[in-house]
Amino acid sequence: MDATSYDLVVVGTGPAGQKGAIAAAKLGKKVAVIDRKETVGGVCLHTGTIPSKTLREAILYLSGFRERTFYGRDYSVSKDITVAELAFRVQKVLGRELEIIRAQLNRNRVATLTGTARFLDANTLEITSAEGTMRVHAEHVLLACGTRPAHSATVPLDGKRIIDSDQLLLGDTLPRDLIVVGAGIIGLEYASMFSALNIKVTVIEQRPTVLDFVDREMIDSLLYFMRQRGAAFRLGEKVLSVAYDDRNRVVAMLESGKEVHGDALLYAVGRQTNADLLNLEAAGLTADARGRIAVNGFYQTGVPHIYAAGDVIGFPALASTAMDQGRLASCHMFGTYCESRPEAIPYGIYTIPEISMVGKTEQELTEAKVPYEIGVSKFEELAKGQMLGVDTGLLKILFDRKTHKLLGVHIFGEQATEIIHIGQAVLAFGGTIDYFRDTVFNYPTMAEAYKVAGLDGLNRL
Amino acid sequence: MDATSYDLVVVGTGPAGQKGAIAAAKLGKKVAVIDRKETVGGVCLHTGTIPSKTLREAILYLSGFRERTFYGRDYSVSKDITVAELAFRVQKVLGRELEIIRAQLNRNRVATLTGTARFLDANTLEITSAEGTMRVHAEHVLLACGTRPAHSATVPLDGKRIIDSDQLLLGDTLPRDLIVVGAGIIGLEYASMFSALNIKVTVIEQRPTVLDFVDREMIDSLLYFMRQRGAAFRLGEKVLSVAYDDRNRVVAMLESGKEVHGDALLYAVGRQTNADLLNLEAAGLTADARGRIAVNGFYQTGVPHIYAAGDVIGFPALASTAMDQGRLASCHMFGTYCESRPEAIPYGIYTIPEISMVGKTEQELTEAKVPYEIGVSKFEELAKGQMLGVDTGLLKILFDRKTHKLLGVHIFGEQATEIIHIGQAVLAFGGTIDYFRDTVFNYPTMAEAYKVAGLDGLNRL
Repeated sequence: MDATSYDLVVVGTGPAGQKGAIAAAKLGKKVAVIDRKETVGGVCLHTGTIPSKTLREAILYLSGFRERTFYGRDYSVSKDITVAELAFRVQKVLGRELEIIRAQLNRNRVATLTGTARFLDANTLEITSAEGTMRVHAEHVLLACGTRPAHSATVPLDGKRIIDSDQLLLGDTLPRDLIVVGAGIIGLEYASMFSALNIKVTVIEQRPTVLDFVDREMIDSLLYFMRQRGAAFRLGEKVLSVAYDDRNRVVAMLESGKEVHGDALLYAVGRQTNADLLNLEAAGLTADARGRIAVNGFYQTGVPHIYAAGDVIGFPALASTAMDQGRLASCHMFGTYCESRPEAIPYGIYTIPEISMVGKTEQELTEAKVPYEIGVSKFEELAKGQMLGVDTGLLKILFDRKTHKLLGVHIFGEQATEIIHIGQAVLAFGGTIDYFRDTVFNYPTMAEAYKVAGLDGLNRL
Repeated sequence: MDATSYDLVVVGTGPAGQKGAIAAAKLGKKVAVIDRKETVGGVCLHTGTIPSKTLREAILYLSGFRERTFYGRDYSVSKDITVAELAFRVQKVLGRELEIIRAQLNRNRVATLTGTARFLDANTLEITSAEGTMRVHAEHVLLACGTRPAHSATVPLDGKRIIDSDQLLLGDTLPRDLIVVGAGIIGLEYASMFSALNIKVTVIEQRPTVLDFVDREMIDSLLYFMRQRGAAFRLGEKVLSVAYDDRNRVVAMLESGKEVHGDALLYAVGRQTNADLLNLEAAGLTADARGRIAVNGFYQTGVPHIYAAGDVIGFPALASTAMDQGRLASCHMFGTYCESRPEAIPYGIYTIPEISMVGKTEQELTEAKVPYEIGVSKFEELAKGQMLGVDTGLLKILFDRKTHKLLGVHIFGEQATEIIHIGQAVLAFGGTIDYFRDTVFNYPTMAEAYKVAGLDGLNRL
């Protein structure tokens, strides 16, 4: 094998690309990753998960959000929270995370090639950068090229006060009020963060409901909570145009005739993939209208030696699932058995407060005509909840009335994305709701919610 | 059954008493609880778990402890943290928690009797209060009378600057430096809290090691961390006398000839039970030197219809285990089957940072000659750890080299007491370390440490 021939060439170094590359390297394969940017990590690191979740922690802290039960609604640690203050933390975490990813790729002897990749044929990729052009031969390819924010002709982004989620921390000051167009995961996460900063937020969404894969009670709780904090939701409303008004504020004109005014507008209506840069036709591949590449259960595309994973294949487009997909793709391409537990994949939505779920929703069980019972725990009734100053949040267990088997867990509130993994383990092992009754939980913890919900559920039988 | 006859009389309304009473009430039994204080809840609520853990959250917040990685070692939110500020939060949580316990007892129609209880015979208790004396007949008795701080003639407590853990929030100002005598759970928890407040702490412990039931690596990490913050440990040192010196500071004279000076001294050498108030002999029972009552695996004392649970039976003397013991005692006395999972009881130690564990320690496995392998994850390498500004912490998985079966999980650091329950579930279901490799974890979370440690462990094979 010559210097530019690889067992696996990975396009993109986000979570899917990283884990796919490392899994193959651990099997002794010769692996290269290609990325357009000179820094590895993909959108997850540079404009996606890492910055947004760091921003979230900074906001939670600087806003004194968790302390408001004790010190009142308008309490905040840092009276004038600046963009610079928020950006400082994001930069710090980003720099450190980048080091870790680089070290991990180096330690596993994964070659890093910089430039834009395009197929010349199904086994040859051309990489173009400022330094020139090179070709690599790939026995296998993993497409993990990720996405960028989708744009729309009706929303003239200017990177100043009409922006997408990649342009968030570019301004000098935080807006007093903000219009968010799009109530997907990204739109809701940012809307709830700005709402936590006491910024008045109006969320506009074309569909009449939001995040349909999430249990309704959790979404209702989030929307109720955000409305209590002054947020407004315009669901089932279409944006016709966006402009600056005569007071130099941003105005969104809706199809219904309404006008929504704000200091700034964040456009967060979905994302499109970077597959358009890949010259897919040369490899015998195609993508759908949003650039998504179709794969089978092994993350294999229509061309058997070419795999795809991460945001480029669509839902759920989370860093956590992308990592798993990358790993599973590499296992399959090199014939190693890898177990996965698709029925127990957790979803984490980093709104404030956060939402997490595993297993089935009430809506899914009702549709499938599975008779279930619920058990609920309210966070403000937990000792730990009170200590943390929590005034909202709930954990809901769904289980089979007859067999007691756990069917799903849905959590809204503090630590949801952490403690969901307890329910996930019980679900994965086919456990019953009795487990929560019969198990000792540390006291005080938020995890105790499982015990309370378990007893509540069993009392309903 | 007349008005003063009960199926079950519970002495004490701490976690063991509450859960024992409620479990019996749910089985349709006539139940009364007796407590000396006019407020229910036991030491857990009034001077133990609830105040100390609320204090801990207040300190974590007001000290800006979690933010020091971002803003430097001496950063604090509230520059002058006062006792009043700390006590305010404790009172708020305590009041709310009291309401919840009262409501729960009322809802389950548990009678609450106020006074000091003592046995007249094995089925009759006399209750004495300011209002007078009454007698109750009990078919079954659950002794959950708890403990109080043990005192020593060599340490003249004055409730001012030579105090026990019940007297902590009585002063006006926080000490500049503090001597803590006793490095049990309570001593270490308070020592680490005051250390987090930038108060110089010296811990004196007669034994050469601390918390022997905890994995050594976790204890070493805690001690290292506390020393980094200026704490000193005098292990294997005996306190001969305590007095005020000529500068009106507290001085502890050690058997080795050393003198330790400080603004205040906290005496936290164990606790003794309240069983001495019960006139045990009348019921045909005895207690050991520290007042502990011996029970069998069903929490039954030597007199079969009298049970004991919670701190009065000794180790581990945690609120979480007390709750479980109370419930199991009631199940057994009324012939209901109750499952429990003694092999998967978690221990939570609320130091700063916290420690939690489930299953076996390396020391136990080595003694039992079980060959094991370890998998480790460092918290500062997790994306979530960086976002939270965590600069210490680790999760260690112990597993069987051949079968891969999980044997124990040990965690030191942020969220330890919460995420331990993930390992607990895998352990309870007999799962293997492979579970962590094959499972998707929300990203970013501290729970991701399981995945990292799982992969690390498997790489060591």
